[in-house]
Amino acid sequence: MKKSFLLLLLAGASTAAAQSAAPLTASLDNVKLTVALTAAGQPTYAVTYRQKPVVTASRLGLQLAHGNGFDGPLVLTGSETKTVDETWQPVLGEVKNIRNHYQQLTVHLRQPAAPGRKLDVVFRVFADGVGFRYEFPRQPNLQYFVLGEELTEFALPADHKAFWIPGDYDTNEYPYTVSKLSEVDNTQLVKGSNDIAVRNAPDAQMVATPLMLKSADGLYVNIHEAAQVDYPAMQLHVDRASHRLTARLVPDAVGTKAYLHAPGHTPWRTIIVSDQAADILASKLILNLNEPSKLKDTGWIKPMKFVGVWWEMQTGKSNWRYADSADTLNAAGQLIPNGHHGATTVNVKRYIDFAARHGIAGVLVEGWNEGWEDWFGNWKEAVFDFVTPYPDFNVAEIQQYAKSKGVQMIMHNETSGSATNYEQHLDTAYQFMNRFGYPAVKTGYVGRIIPRGEHHDGQWMSNHYVRVAEMAARHHVTVDMHESVRPTGLGRTYPNWLACEAGRGNEYNAFTTEGNRPEHETIMPFTRFMGGPMDYTPGIFKLRNYEPEHPERHVHTTLAKQLALYVVLYSPLQMAADLPENYEQHLDAFQFIKDVPVDWDDTRILEAEPGEYISTARQQKGSSSWFVGAITNEKARTATLNLSFLPKGRRYTATIYADAATANWQTNPEAYKISQQTVQAGTTLRLSLAPGGGAAISLVPVK
Amino acid sequence: MKKSFLLLLLAGASTAAAQSAAPLTASLDNVKLTVALTAAGQPTYAVTYRQKPVVTASRLGLQLAHGNGFDGPLVLTGSETKTVDETWQPVLGEVKNIRNHYQQLTVHLRQPAAPGRKLDVVFRVFADGVGFRYEFPRQPNLQYFVLGEELTEFALPADHKAFWIPGDYDTNEYPYTVSKLSEVDNTQLVKGSNDIAVRNAPDAQMVATPLMLKSADGLYVNIHEAAQVDYPAMQLHVDRASHRLTARLVPDAVGTKAYLHAPGHTPWRTIIVSDQAADILASKLILNLNEPSKLKDTGWIKPMKFVGVWWEMQTGKSNWRYADSADTLNAAGQLIPNGHHGATTVNVKRYIDFAARHGIAGVLVEGWNEGWEDWFGNWKEAVFDFVTPYPDFNVAEIQQYAKSKGVQMIMHNETSGSATNYEQHLDTAYQFMNRFGYPAVKTGYVGRIIPRGEHHDGQWMSNHYVRVAEMAARHHVTVDMHESVRPTGLGRTYPNWLACEAGRGNEYNAFTTEGNRPEHETIMPFTRFMGGPMDYTPGIFKLRNYEPEHPERHVHTTLAKQLALYVVLYSPLQMAADLPENYEQHLDAFQFIKDVPVDWDDTRILEAEPGEYISTARQQKGSSSWFVGAITNEKARTATLNLSFLPKGRRYTATIYADAATANWQTNPEAYKISQQTVQAGTTLRLSLAPGGGAAISLVPVK
Repeated sequence: MKKSFLLLLLAGASTAAAQSAAPLTASLDNVKLTVALTAAGQPTYAVTYRQKPVVTASRLGLQLAHGNGFDGPLVLTGSETKTVDETWQPVLGEVKNIRNHYQQLTVHLRQPAAPGRKLDVVFRVFADGVGFRYEFPRQPNLQYFVLGEELTEFALPADHKAFWIPGDYDTNEYPYTVSKLSEVDNTQLVKGSNDIAVRNAPDAQMVATPLMLKSADGLYVNIHEAAQVDYPAMQLHVDRASHRLTARLVPDAVGTKAYLHAPGHTPWRTIIVSDQAADILASKLILNLNEPSKLKDTGWIKPMKFVGVWWEMQTGKSNWRYADSADTLNAAGQLIPNGHHGATTVNVKRYIDFAARHGIAGVLVEGWNEGWEDWFGNWKEAVFDFVTPYPDFNVAEIQQYAKSKGVQMIMHNETSGSATNYEQHLDTAYQFMNRFGYPAVKTGYVGRIIPRGEHHDGQWMSNHYVRVAEMAARHHVTVDMHESVRPTGLGRTYPNWLACEAGRGNEYNAFTTEGNRPEHETIMPFTRFMGGPMDYTPGIFKLRNYEPEHPERHVHTTLAKQLALYVVLYSPLQMAADLPENYEQHLDAFQFIKDVPVDWDDTRILEAEPGEYISTARQQKGSSSWFVGAITNEKARTATLNLSFLPKGRRYTATIYADAATANWQTNPEAYKISQQTVQAGTTLRLSLAPGGGAAISLVPVK
Repeated sequence: MKKSFLLLLLAGASTAAAQSAAPLTASLDNVKLTVALTAAGQPTYAVTYRQKPVVTASRLGLQLAHGNGFDGPLVLTGSETKTVDETWQPVLGEVKNIRNHYQQLTVHLRQPAAPGRKLDVVFRVFADGVGFRYEFPRQPNLQYFVLGEELTEFALPADHKAFWIPGDYDTNEYPYTVSKLSEVDNTQLVKGSNDIAVRNAPDAQMVATPLMLKSADGLYVNIHEAAQVDYPAMQLHVDRASHRLTARLVPDAVGTKAYLHAPGHTPWRTIIVSDQAADILASKLILNLNEPSKLKDTGWIKPMKFVGVWWEMQTGKSNWRYADSADTLNAAGQLIPNGHHGATTVNVKRYIDFAARHGIAGVLVEGWNEGWEDWFGNWKEAVFDFVTPYPDFNVAEIQQYAKSKGVQMIMHNETSGSATNYEQHLDTAYQFMNRFGYPAVKTGYVGRIIPRGEHHDGQWMSNHYVRVAEMAARHHVTVDMHESVRPTGLGRTYPNWLACEAGRGNEYNAFTTEGNRPEHETIMPFTRFMGGPMDYTPGIFKLRNYEPEHPERHVHTTLAKQLALYVVLYSPLQMAADLPENYEQHLDAFQFIKDVPVDWDDTRILEAEPGEYISTARQQKGSSSWFVGAITNEKARTATLNLSFLPKGRRYTATIYADAATANWQTNPEAYKISQQTVQAGTTLRLSLAPGGGAAISLVPVK
C-alpha cells in the first residue's frame, strides 16, 4: 500500500514538472489570480484587477525551525478548482445577508527531495480580492512541527501611498502615517508612543496589518488576514526600494513563530482590491474566510450601547485605585482610601440612573476590584483576582439596583497583561459574572505579557483570546477585548466576541495632547476595522477643558462628528463615553445616541476616501429606519449624500445633526445645529462638514 | 517626617561604620556564625563547627536587574539577636515531635549612596547548621523589583569530596557523581542523560542542591535551601580552583531571575554540618525553616501505600497509549486501539483485587485519559484535558469497583510540561477527582515547559507547583509531583503535598541499562531526600528479565534491599511498584511491604556513610512496633544494628528479611531468607548484606 502510494506521488510529480510551465489561474469578475513555479521550483502567485497588477509575482513558502521546510524548491503534483456561491446570515452585523462567492484553486506541492513533505496552497478568488492559506495535509513526515518563519510576499507594482502603523509585537495603539511605501520608517513613532502601550517594534520598516494602500492610478488595495487562530499575527516588512512586502510573524518567547500540526493550516492572507474606496469598506471577504459560528445557540447574544465609569478616570476626575498604595495600610490592616475612587456604589448608581433615564442598556464600571494600586508596570503575575470588590463597591447592591432599573452591568476584567493569572482565575471569574448577572465583560491587557517573553500578538496570546471567548460563550457572556491582537473576522466564528479595541481609540484624546488627528477616523475603517468591530468609545460632548490638569488637551473632532462615528464606525458594542453631566448639557444632540442602533440589516458606503472622508448609511435591524454618518478630516467639505438607498415612494423624516456654520474642531468644536426635513429616495443632501467635523442623520419613515 | 527618618538612618549608618570592624556572631552548641563587612563594604559570613571551618568568609549580596542593587558597598545600620526553642508536630513525618531551637541574628544593611536601599540578612544558627535568607524591608525606594542574580557564596576551606548531580534547569534525574570539587564537570553526564528528561545545563561546573560534601578530616556538610517559594531554585557554580561555590538562580524565559516585592524575602539558604553522617540524615533544620501548615484542617490527609498500572508500562508489557496514532482514525472517526493499552477496566480491576487482598490502600493508573498518542516531545500546549478517559477505561465502573473493595483510586495528571494547559483545566480536573472520589493525584511534567522558555526549576514553575498544591488542598486531594522542582521542606506548609519525584527514581532501572548504581540509594537520603519525601517507587521483586526487549537490563539491588528501601527512604507515599504476578511469586517477602508503615513516631539513623551504607530504624506511628532498613552499595558488608532504641525490658519478635548467602545484585538478586528471633534493647544484630544488598526487619512486641 505504502509503495504504490509513493509511486503515485512520483507520477504526479513528473506530470507537475511539465505542468509548471503553464501557470494555474482562477478568477472572478475583475479579479484574476495566477500561480506558477519559477524555474528554480519556487511557487509564486500574482493578482490583477481589471488587468492592472495588484500583486506581481510574489513568493509563497514557509520555513520550518528544524529545517526541511517549504523554503526550498517544490514540485507541483496537482491542482483543483471549484466555485462556491452561497449566502449566510451573521448573528450581528452591518448587513442581514452576506454573499460568499468565490472560485477556489487548490495547488498541491511537494518537496522533490527527501523527506518529500507535502504542502497545499488554497486560493479563493472573490469579486473584490483574493484570500489564500497554506494547508498541511496528513502525511507521514510532517506531524508536529515548529514554524521558523512564513515567507509569503506581497510584491507591489509601484511605490503606493500607504496608511500604516508600526509593526509592533505588542500594540496597535499608534496614529496612522500616510506616506509612500518608500518612506516607511517607524522609528520615531515607536519612540514617541505613550507609556501605557508596551512597545516592541524591532524592525523600523515593519508595518502592521490591515495595511491600506492606494496606487497612483487609483487602485485601492488592503492587505490583512482572516481567521488568525493558533498562529501569530502577520506583520509586513517593507522593502522600501522594491515595494515588496514580506510576511513576518510575531515571535514567541524563544524566538520561533508557531507550533503546528498536520493536518492543519495557516490563517488566510487577504488582498482586497477595487478602484472604488467604498468597495473596500463594503467588502465581506474577511468574514467569508472565517469559519461559521461555533456556537449553536446564539439567541442570548445581544448588541449593546453603554455608559460607564471610565472617561472620568481617563480625564483625571476620579481614579481606578481606591488607595494610593497597597503597601501602606491602616491600623486594621486595610487599604487607606484616597478619596478619588471612581467605582463607588454611589457613583455607579448615578450612571445607572442616567442609563435608565435614557434607555442605554449597559453600564461599565472600571476600577471596581482590588489590585489597582500597583497593577501596572511591575510585570507581576498575581495582580487581580477578578472577584474581590473594593470596600466601597457593593456588588450585590449595585446588581439589585441595576436590575430594578432595567439596566445591565458590564464586568471589567483588566489582566494587566498577566494572561496566566487570568487563566488561573477564568472559571471563577465567569462564575462570578453569572452569579451577579453580568451578561458582558470588557477585558484588558495593558502591560507586558505573562507568560514572560510572549507578546500580545503571538501565537500563545492569540490562543488565549480564543480561550477567553470560548469560556465566555460557555457562560453566556459577550466579550469586548482591549489591548488584544487586532481582529481578523473571528466574530463570525465566536459571535459573542462582540468587539476588540486593538487600535488607537478615542481615549488617546484624554491620554495625550497629540490625541487622534482629525483624519484618524477616516483611516480607521480602512485599516483597524477591516478585521472587525472596535470599541472606539465615541460620543464625547465636552471636547475641551475636560482635564483640569491638562487644559491644552482636546478631542480632535466636532461634536457632530462624534455623533457620526456611531454610524461610520461599525460595532455591536458602542459606548456613550462621556460623563452624564456632559450629556445633560446637550440632551438634544444626545437624542441621536439614544436613537442610533448597534445592529443593522443593510449598509451603504455613500462616499469614501481614506484619510479624507467617509459617509455611511445603515438600515436599522428589523426596521425601515436608516441612519447616516458623514465625517471629514481636518479639511472642511461638503458631504454629498444621495439617498437613493431609501425605498422608492416612501417619505422619511430626516433629523440632521450637523456642524454649525462656525464649528471647527480646534476653535469651536461644540457648535452644532439640529434640523429636520422630509426626504425620499430621490433626495441628495449636501451637508457642510466643518474642519474635523461631521454630520449624523436619522431617517424615520413618515407615518 | 520623611526628613527625620532619613537623619535617623544616617545616624545608624555612622554607628555601623564603627561597628563594622567588630564582626557579629551567633552560635548554638558547636556551630558558630560570624558576619562581617569587608573594608570595601562587602557583607560576608562564615561558619565553623567545633572550631573547624565549614564555610570561610563568603560573599552575601543580590544584583537587581535594573541596577542599584545589593552588589555594591553596604553599611551596617544595626543588628539584633534572639533565641527560639519550641517544639512542633508534623502532620505526617519521620518523628512525632520536632524541636526548633536556634539563635537568630538579624543584620540590617543599607546602601551608603542613593537610593539608600535597605536589606536585611536573617541568620538562624541551629545545633546542626545555619540557615539564612535575605529580607527586603518595606521602603520607599524598593517596591517591585527584578532580580538579576543572587550573589551568595559558600567558600569551602578545602577540596571536599562531593556527591553531586549537574545543575540543570529542568531536571534532577541524574545519577550522582562522587568526586572532588576540583573535578566537577557535568558535560558528559548531561550529554549522556536519557531523552525523557529535558536537559538544560549550560554551565559545566554547575551542580544542583542538595549538595552533599565530606571533608578529608571527616566533616559532613550539606548545602540546600528551605521554603523555596516565589523564587527560582538555587544551583551552585563550583570554582574548581578555589572550592568556592556561587549561587546561580534558574533563569526565566527572558533571562532574569525573579520578580520580587518589598516587603518580602528570599528562601533560606541552608548549611547542615556534623562530624557524624547520621546527624545529616536526622536533621530537621530544613523543615524548621519552613512555615507552619497553611491548612487548618488536616485530618483528611492520609499517607498511603499503593500499587499501580505503571511498572508494566515502564517495562514495555503494556503502554500508556490506546492507539498508535491520534491522526489515524477508523471510519467512525475513532482512535484505533493498538491492543497494548494498560489502563483498561479489566486490568485495573486486577490491581484493585490485588490491593484489596493485601491491604494496600491505593491503586494508581497511568494512561487512563486521552492524549497519550502524541503527548511527548512536540512542545504542544493542548495535550491532555485531564477528564476524558479512553474508551476502555470506565471511570464510574472502576470507582464503584474500588469502593466495593475498600480501595482508593489515585488520579494521574500528566501535563507533559504544559503547565499553562494544566492551569487552564485545574478547576475542572480537581472537580472531576472529587466527583469520582479520588483522594490523591500524581502529577507529571515530562517535557519542555510551557510557558515556552520557562524551566521546571524557575520562579514561574515553582509558583505553579504551589498553586497546584493549594488547589489540591481546596479539593482535599493529596499530591505527588513528578518532574517538579526538588523539594525544600514545603510539605510542612502544605501537608497535602505528600511527595515529589524530582530525582532519579527506581524507574531508571527500567528505562536504561545503566540504571541506578548500587550506591545510588545510599546517596539519595543525603541529597534529594534532604528537601522532602520522594516517590522513589521501590519494591521491585522481579529484578531481571522483566523487559523482554532489553534482557540486559536489571535492577541494581537485591530483593532484600528493595524491602529495606521502604524504611531507609522516607515517604508518606510508598508504591509497591512491581506487578501483582511478581509479588505473588514471593508472598513471604511481600509480607514486609504489607506490614511496613508510611508514617512514624520516631526515627534513628543507626549507621550511615554517604555512598556506602545506611541503616535506619523507625517506630510506627501510634504503635510500639519498629522497622529497620539496612542497605549497602556494591560492596558486601555487615550491618551492625544496635537495638538500644527499643524500650528497655520489652521483648520483640524480629522478622528479618535478609540477603541469602549467595545473593548478589548482579548474579543472584532474588535470593533472600526470612528468619525470626526474639530481641530486646540490649541486642545487637549483625546482618550480612550482599553486594548491592540490604536487609529489612520488622520488630513487633512479644505479647
